[in-house]
Amino acid sequence: MNTYPNKVELVEVGPRDGFQSIKEFIPTELKKEIIDRLVDAGCTTVQVTSFVHPKAIPQMQDAREVAQYVLEKYPGLRAYALVPNLRGAQNAYEAGLREISYVISVSPGHNMANVRRTLDESFAELGTILSTYPDMKVVLDAATTFGCPFDGEATLQQVMDYVQRAYDLGIRDIDLCDTIGVAAPVQVERTVLALREKFPDVTFGVHIHDTRNMGMACSLVAMQCGLTRVSTTVGGLGGCPFAPGASGNTASEDFVYMAQKMGIDTGVDFEKLLDTAKYLREKVPGNYSGHQINIQKPQCTMG
Amino acid sequence: MNTYPNKVELVEVGPRDGFQSIKEFIPTELKKEIIDRLVDAGCTTVQVTSFVHPKAIPQMQDAREVAQYVLEKYPGLRAYALVPNLRGAQNAYEAGLREISYVISVSPGHNMANVRRTLDESFAELGTILSTYPDMKVVLDAATTFGCPFDGEATLQQVMDYVQRAYDLGIRDIDLCDTIGVAAPVQVERTVLALREKFPDVTFGVHIHDTRNMGMACSLVAMQCGLTRVSTTVGGLGGCPFAPGASGNTASEDFVYMAQKMGIDTGVDFEKLLDTAKYLREKVPGNYSGHQINIQKPQCTMG
Repeated sequence: MNTYPNKVELVEVGPRDGFQSIKEFIPTELKKEIIDRLVDAGCTTVQVTSFVHPKAIPQMQDAREVAQYVLEKYPGLRAYALVPNLRGAQNAYEAGLREISYVISVSPGHNMANVRRTLDESFAELGTILSTYPDMKVVLDAATTFGCPFDGEATLQQVMDYVQRAYDLGIRDIDLCDTIGVAAPVQVERTVLALREKFPDVTFGVHIHDTRNMGMACSLVAMQCGLTRVSTTVGGLGGCPFAPGASGNTASEDFVYMAQKMGIDTGVDFEKLLDTAKYLREKVPGNYSGHQINIQKPQCTMG
Repeated sequence: MNTYPNKVELVEVGPRDGFQSIKEFIPTELKKEIIDRLVDAGCTTVQVTSFVHPKAIPQMQDAREVAQYVLEKYPGLRAYALVPNLRGAQNAYEAGLREISYVISVSPGHNMANVRRTLDESFAELGTILSTYPDMKVVLDAATTFGCPFDGEATLQQVMDYVQRAYDLGIRDIDLCDTIGVAAPVQVERTVLALREKFPDVTFGVHIHDTRNMGMACSLVAMQCGLTRVSTTVGGLGGCPFAPGASGNTASEDFVYMAQKMGIDTGVDFEKLLDTAKYLREKVPGNYSGHQINIQKPQCTMG
């Protein structure tokens, strides 16, 4: 029999990874309202925005306002932002955040396309961030851990070397990201087991895009391997620039439903989360991978 | 590490479970064309229709014509039909079929709603079918194995007793059906492991609806438990009358993609299957749970 953790930290990344997939600007007030609803549903860890250049992702031009709103209103929330570079880290810090995720791709090709840096440059910059802001908690987003549109699938050795570099800089929190949504369950299992064995003091999470409908299965397998941190987006909002029309991330409410039926505590209220997903879809058209948002009268008997 | 079978029998049930979810009559020629495409893609086991009263499901009024077309054109295909009663079995037999699936729900409430019989009546009728047509292979569809809109979740003991009754009648092939799509992975695992231990000479399969986005995860877990027979529908076409608007079955092409990435042989060509799914959705509007049919230019690098 597989065993599962009793409790899993749901990392709601919709306000960042979901919203950034939308071209039309989402009013700042609506962003705040969605975050309010997520917190009300019980989400305790939320990636609230990203500090990127507004020319690169205009959707995130209100990062500072959103971050400050959240920090002031929810001092107990684990709120953090994604940053692609030192400048972003600085802006996040100045906005008052004391936790960020810094993104470096496992594959050099994607890292260059995404943040215009070699891996050496990105890791050097990560070192600078860590030394400049010693009181900032940094989670590393390991993009393209399971596949890259440019370089194909990374070898396990590549992933291990990547994590070693981060480890040597002092990183102890790493989200393994399936940026394009091609991870197969065996690949997740092989990678997670090897990493956990070699780096027992690192907290790993998974962040799986649902492009090819494997988001739930891969998140499940991650839990079979003992992971207790899973990133999802409300409604499954998101996308994959390399697969136009594809579904988004693993849907938070579908994941919470599954966890609840399996006796895994996420602390999140399924009904409220589902309501939020439906509300969001009404307000913001986009790619949603959630299935339950389509059900007109959900039979949520959990029975 | 989980282990997986090297080879899995993909049971394509779209022409029955998918089509029956569509109210508007699908032209018989289109049904044949879809089956042609499925066979061309490599499907070797196809539930081609069901022999039900045309008043109950008018969509299946051409069952005889479809069955005879398939039997004549594809003598090597494992083609079969679903039947809800003795009359259906007789019609299937007379059409030339030598394999059927007979459906009995695990829960009495659903069995009464679905085929208007008590469990005793259904099992008695199954006995009659087996003795009347000794040269007919009968797969038992165990509807509502994992949950019922009327009776809630069956206990494991109920499922075991149900299988024992079938076993005593001589049944050795049983598909565990998640008719309303509420099965959680742990439930599938617990059920399958217990059944396989007690009935080692029975071939079990799973048939999971994707209502709550757990179709892929539950099918995966079934394979972790050693099952080598998984039912899906092309495009994920289907539905759940108890959850209007819900997605359909687990999508064949998404499952095949996952299997292929995991080194599990289904014998099915992913690209051809995906093309068929897209073609079907173009021709027949309905509830599709497949994710990859939305991708405009698939990045099927498998990389």
